[in-house]
Amino acid sequence: MGLWRITLAYDGTDFAGWQTQAGATRIRTVQDTVEAALAHFSAGQRIVVVGAGRTDTGVHALGQVASFALEKDMAPAELQRAMNGLLPDDVRVLEAARAPEGFHARKSALSKLYRYEMDTGPLQLPLRRRVAGHVPWRLDQAAVRSTAEMYCGRHDFASLASAGGSVTTTVRTVLRSEARFAEGTLIYEVEADGFLRKMVRSLVGGLVAVGRGTLAVEDLRRALLARDRRAWPPPADARGLALVRVTYAPSRGPDVE
Amino acid sequence: MGLWRITLAYDGTDFAGWQTQAGATRIRTVQDTVEAALAHFSAGQRIVVVGAGRTDTGVHALGQVASFALEKDMAPAELQRAMNGLLPDDVRVLEAARAPEGFHARKSALSKLYRYEMDTGPLQLPLRRRVAGHVPWRLDQAAVRSTAEMYCGRHDFASLASAGGSVTTTVRTVLRSEARFAEGTLIYEVEADGFLRKMVRSLVGGLVAVGRGTLAVEDLRRALLARDRRAWPPPADARGLALVRVTYAPSRGPDVE
Repeated sequence: MGLWRITLAYDGTDFAGWQTQAGATRIRTVQDTVEAALAHFSAGQRIVVVGAGRTDTGVHALGQVASFALEKDMAPAELQRAMNGLLPDDVRVLEAARAPEGFHARKSALSKLYRYEMDTGPLQLPLRRRVAGHVPWRLDQAAVRSTAEMYCGRHDFASLASAGGSVTTTVRTVLRSEARFAEGTLIYEVEADGFLRKMVRSLVGGLVAVGRGTLAVEDLRRALLARDRRAWPPPADARGLALVRVTYAPSRGPDVE
Repeated sequence: MGLWRITLAYDGTDFAGWQTQAGATRIRTVQDTVEAALAHFSAGQRIVVVGAGRTDTGVHALGQVASFALEKDMAPAELQRAMNGLLPDDVRVLEAARAPEGFHARKSALSKLYRYEMDTGPLQLPLRRRVAGHVPWRLDQAAVRSTAEMYCGRHDFASLASAGGSVTTTVRTVLRSEARFAEGTLIYEVEADGFLRKMVRSLVGGLVAVGRGTLAVEDLRRALLARDRRAWPPPADARGLALVRVTYAPSRGPDVE
């Protein structure tokens, strides 16, 4: 019985998010899709796959990490190749490696890095529709950068917690929060020890509100301290968001063959 | 009666190319789509739209130019806004301007610039599937650059002429032909006074054949001189190709209001 860790990339456009939805057999999720491929190596038996980030409907991944146990013995390159042969082409296994005992893609993760791309200005190029959000305004770049810096550190993010979440605490530590602009596109990267549901999209919603002048940075800081969802601007669209990387402690890390 | 010039961007994925296909009413083309929008300003009368480049099925545009005549008098910004309100979101009008007498988007064009993006290596990221081609090999970068240089100048491109074309001459002048690499992606830009059908994709097919070592640059030069389609490597996929820019003589050029 071997424990595995795989790195996945997917186009989230045509998935109802990562997680299997109980009783909803006609909804296409990434977890179901990966589990269906793995069932080929277990005589049809379900192999439960745990994802590091439970990405939402429409959210993409460049480096999602997932873990599972497999009875069948295979070389990592063989497992990767076989899975890519079975998976639809909007999901790819970028790497497969044996994982150390006790490894759990979500619980063992130290941090996750997300990237959001937001095209700004009157028009969005049609080719960007699937990979970037869009707001029709020009944003104040200095104000957006200050807001991104304000997010850094340990905060209670209750104001950004989406309804329906079932978390015990809304306190998270943001390790890095950086906004830059490239030709009218806001590129926002945020790394934290964990994220609440829709948290990144809400952080981006805050950047946009300040960037277009609806709120001052100080107003947004007060909205964060208020711990009240109604005080926070609306979240940005899912299509601009991608899970870029998941970081583990070195001992829990890459291939241990 | 005013003559107009508009600049268009589109995601070619869901179009059967630019050009209206006679008798084929259920095929979705960019020309039909733009003409359907314009019919709103002419009491349903067909307004024939000429495109600078007759882009093929699946080929994208970042700066296609089209011309047409319109009886109704409108301000350029008003026409642009109204068209974007009527068009599906995979086509956008980036600019609308009045054109000088005699302007014809295709015949007045001095040159067109196309860009091709080709991801190389074992896997393609799912988010890149619509915007870039993919070959599983690593390419020899120096060999690809030499091949791109070899394309420059005035040549008879009969070896690259796709069947079914109806051109009188297969001689074209390539003004610029440059290949560069960014993180495993080949980015090829080519500007010429005109292109044969599938010519850019065939030029890219040649880059790939030399880059992976199937042919030497000299073999490909001989294949060009042979003026024989069977001598040339297969064309690259449409999805990596985009019409970037069309250039006109200054007097035929931008807005003349």
